[in-house]
Amino acid sequence: MDREYGVRVAIAEDVVLGEGVVLGYHVVIESGVKIGSGVRIGHNSVILKGTVIADGVTVGCGTILGCQPFTNSRVIHSVSEQAHLEIGSGSRIGNDAVVYAGSRLGEDVMVGDLASIRERTMVGHSTVIGRSATIECRTTIGNRCVIQTGAYITADMVIEDQVFIGPEVSTSNDKYMEPTLIALKGPHIKTGARIGNNATLLPGVVIGAGAIVGAGTVVTKDVPDGATVKGVPAK
Amino acid sequence: MDREYGVRVAIAEDVVLGEGVVLGYHVVIESGVKIGSGVRIGHNSVILKGTVIADGVTVGCGTILGCQPFTNSRVIHSVSEQAHLEIGSGSRIGNDAVVYAGSRLGEDVMVGDLASIRERTMVGHSTVIGRSATIECRTTIGNRCVIQTGAYITADMVIEDQVFIGPEVSTSNDKYMEPTLIALKGPHIKTGARIGNNATLLPGVVIGAGAIVGAGTVVTKDVPDGATVKGVPAK
Amino acid sequence: MDREYGVRVAIAEDVVLGEGVVLGYHVVIESGVKIGSGVRIGHNSVILKGTVIADGVTVGCGTILGCQPFTNSRVIHSVSEQAHLEIGSGSRIGNDAVVYAGSRLGEDVMVGDLASIRERTMVGHSTVIGRSATIECRTTIGNRCVIQTGAYITADMVIEDQVFIGPEVSTSNDKYMEPTLIALKGPHIKTGARIGNNATLLPGVVIGAGAIVGAGTVVTKDVPDGATVKGVPAK
Repeated sequence: MDREYGVRVAIAEDVVLGEGVVLGYHVVIESGVKIGSGVRIGHNSVILKGTVIADGVTVGCGTILGCQPFTNSRVIHSVSEQAHLEIGSGSRIGNDAVVYAGSRLGEDVMVGDLASIRERTMVGHSTVIGRSATIECRTTIGNRCVIQTGAYITADMVIEDQVFIGPEVSTSNDKYMEPTLIALKGPHIKTGARIGNNATLLPGVVIGAGAIVGAGTVVTKDVPDGATVKGVPAK
Repeated sequence: MDREYGVRVAIAEDVVLGEGVVLGYHVVIESGVKIGSGVRIGHNSVILKGTVIADGVTVGCGTILGCQPFTNSRVIHSVSEQAHLEIGSGSRIGNDAVVYAGSRLGEDVMVGDLASIRERTMVGHSTVIGRSATIECRTTIGNRCVIQTGAYITADMVIEDQVFIGPEVSTSNDKYMEPTLIALKGPHIKTGARIGNNATLLPGVVIGAGAIVGAGTVVTKDVPDGATVKGVPAK
Repeated sequence: MDREYGVRVAIAEDVVLGEGVVLGYHVVIESGVKIGSGVRIGHNSVILKGTVIADGVTVGCGTILGCQPFTNSRVIHSVSEQAHLEIGSGSRIGNDAVVYAGSRLGEDVMVGDLASIRERTMVGHSTVIGRSATIECRTTIGNRCVIQTGAYITADMVIEDQVFIGPEVSTSNDKYMEPTLIALKGPHIKTGARIGNNATLLPGVVIGAGAIVGAGTVVTKDVPDGATVKGVPAK
């Protein structure tokens, strides 16, 4: 780049870089980060303290990895400093995505552009987190799931393996809708269930294994294994 | 940072920086900006012309503060140059967020990652604007409200104090759905009302004080104070 | 900027810059890019390989233009290297937006903040793609359309001219909701149709010319020209 003036990356002294790592312009890598062989990080991305990235991962441009949670006085659950973010080998993170410390993505995970994943979330291998999807904290997502574009996965949810969640699906864990110290409970979606686009799941509902929830459905009660439901409320 | 090559921030000559300000790498701060004591701004964030940030504010990485509005020929309402953005003391802005000039956030406000707030919007103190939430222009939001993740707050809306708006709630101000110079009118949500996730509010509806709107509800008419409604349309 | 230390842009040797181009700080411009006269690019934006930007375009801060698609093993449709992104004259792209290679935006197009547009998508002139809207691949959007904030436009959709799509509308192209090599088919929305906010469109539905779909409606069948439908399912 002949016509560049100034610039390259800002990288802490103790960062461990594997062989063949390729870093874009204006990348920032903070202290304690470990980056495996063959990792590629796009321009203007930021890798925060302690993040561990396995071999062969690619990260797009403008992405922020390893953020610490924050809050204000309106949020009565306190937040604490999280351990490092871990990203499994071969995973691919898009552009302008945000992933928090204290979470772990398995191998071969795909995270779309503008998606965000909060702290203490575990994502299994070969799962897709779609573009602009939002995953809250303390949620567990299994292997080979698809969370489609713009879906909202609330905190304290359990999503088992091979689940399909359509675009713009909305989930909730808060039946009080006001500040409370009562433990919140997100939906539990069992293996192989499929949720149609823009469906709404209420706090704590269980979607049975292999069940199908139609597009636009509002699910207020548990859905048995293998059942198909649709409508408002779901029937 | 021993291994850095080149770089730090780009900061205009007339910028006022309080004591103990901490700036990340590749931060840009334009002319006329005033930044209070103890403010922390993450890597790769941009503070545009004239923005005023009070003491103790924190800003994440990749966030853009103080944007001017823009438009194309399809949008028949003209936009004009806005006065500066103001952010109250102790507020916390996340990562990859976008906040426009001409707006004012109170004290102790929290703005989540990837959220955006347009011009001429007033946000009261201790309110939460969730991750990926989108707030349009000329809207007023009270104190101690929670606007959850992915909610869409249209232009010309009034949200009073202590309101809860669930994830992915959608609001509208445009009953013509075509270019018009008729004044648009967003919903008005009164004190303490609670709106469930993925509910849809039509233009100009009034949600009474303390009312509850169920998840997935489509609200086509005013809801009285203290009432609970659900269904499509709401009953 | 007197107080800057270091930095400016990183720009490949063969980049063609028109007269009067204004580049922000920390802009990255890769090889083969052509930028017309009077173009303005905000701070921390990235223009990737081969992107062609016509005269008079403005781009906000933190935006990524010309990304290549990526995938993991869960997505069974392969992705291939795409030709360059083209942006027509006078178009305005917001902040923290993401637009892929292999797409073409017409003249006078507006793309909002945090919006994303995938590969092989064609957008006509004077169309608005709202903030945080997400447009998938291989979709065609006509002239003078408005795709409102947060709308989700799936892959393989056809949107004709003068169409209005409300905030948070959700569309789908995948009736199997599992991996399949069967060709997927998105909705087809004809000229002048208007879709209310948070409506849900199922795979392959045809919305007739001038038809109106009410807010929150779930459309499961074709809607005739000029018809008005609402409810779950639409009637």
